[in-house]
Amino acid sequence: MKAAVFLLLTLLVPAYHTGAQCIIDNAVDLKVQAAISSIVSSTLAKAKLLCQNVSARGALVSCPAGYKPTGCACGMACGSWDIRSDSTCHCQCGGIDWTAARCCKIGLE
Amino acid sequence: MKAAVFLLLTLLVPAYHTGAQCIIDNAVDLKVQAAISSIVSSTLAKAKLLCQNVSARGALVSCPAGYKPTGCACGMACGSWDIRSDSTCHCQCGGIDWTAARCCKIGLE
Amino acid sequence: MKAAVFLLLTLLVPAYHTGAQCIIDNAVDLKVQAAISSIVSSTLAKAKLLCQNVSARGALVSCPAGYKPTGCACGMACGSWDIRSDSTCHCQCGGIDWTAARCCKIGLE
Repeated sequence: MKAAVFLLLTLLVPAYHTGAQCIIDNAVDLKVQAAISSIVSSTLAKAKLLCQNVSARGALVSCPAGYKPTGCACGMACGSWDIRSDSTCHCQCGGIDWTAARCCKIGLE
Repeated sequence: MKAAVFLLLTLLVPAYHTGAQCIIDNAVDLKVQAAISSIVSSTLAKAKLLCQNVSARGALVSCPAGYKPTGCACGMACGSWDIRSDSTCHCQCGGIDWTAARCCKIGLE
Repeated sequence: MKAAVFLLLTLLVPAYHTGAQCIIDNAVDLKVQAAISSIVSSTLAKAKLLCQNVSARGALVSCPAGYKPTGCACGMACGSWDIRSDSTCHCQCGGIDWTAARCCKIGLE
């Protein structure tokens, strides 16, 4: 009789164990899959371009830390500019009076 | 004999229970970890800068809702502009004939 | 006696099974929820605006593949430009000597 009970448990427990892991695996897969779909759209929905303007006297102005210049404007109607070190707007016309930068980054809004 | 069976079950079931939870925890951790790695790259791969141009007569033009101006262009060769209310390009030269805005947002492509 | 053992197992195993699934469901929910929260911020923290400048002789210059122009600069102090095909800066003043584009994309930094 004792042997029969041990045999029964020996057979039942591993079989149950394997089945449970399979069920768990599938449940986790489905849950993670659903979470992935929802997170992709919710994450992207929260990601926004955050921009600000900075300006200074003279021919140079730098964006705040973390921001990148996407375009520059210059005094004296000048449209000739370049961006230095990925951070600073430089207006090229002689004797320029002011320089402005449009500075953007990716962030939560 | 009955007592032996009860004792066996009393010992086996909680032990199995604890072990199963541990296995489940680790399996979920691994699955979620893998999902995280893949979602980070897949989400970023889908996120794109979406841009469009808008232009209008006069010295002002606004970006469509959801878009931010990243730079402005002006008629009459004018390169002096500023951005108002984080949404409107304004060309500063007198008697300006047209104003254009480059408008961008983050989205799926 | 045998019947009693079978009855016991028949009652115990399904009850345990249902309880375990519930525990697993909740554990997975919590883990996935936590993973979602952390991934949203970590993903966004890794997403950056990557920008570069390109310039060329003449009135036209195109951004590298995958990059979008966010603003343009022109030689001869010209501030009148437009963007063609979502990829190419075009300076409109006559006899323009050089054209530059500020080109950005979303990427990992």
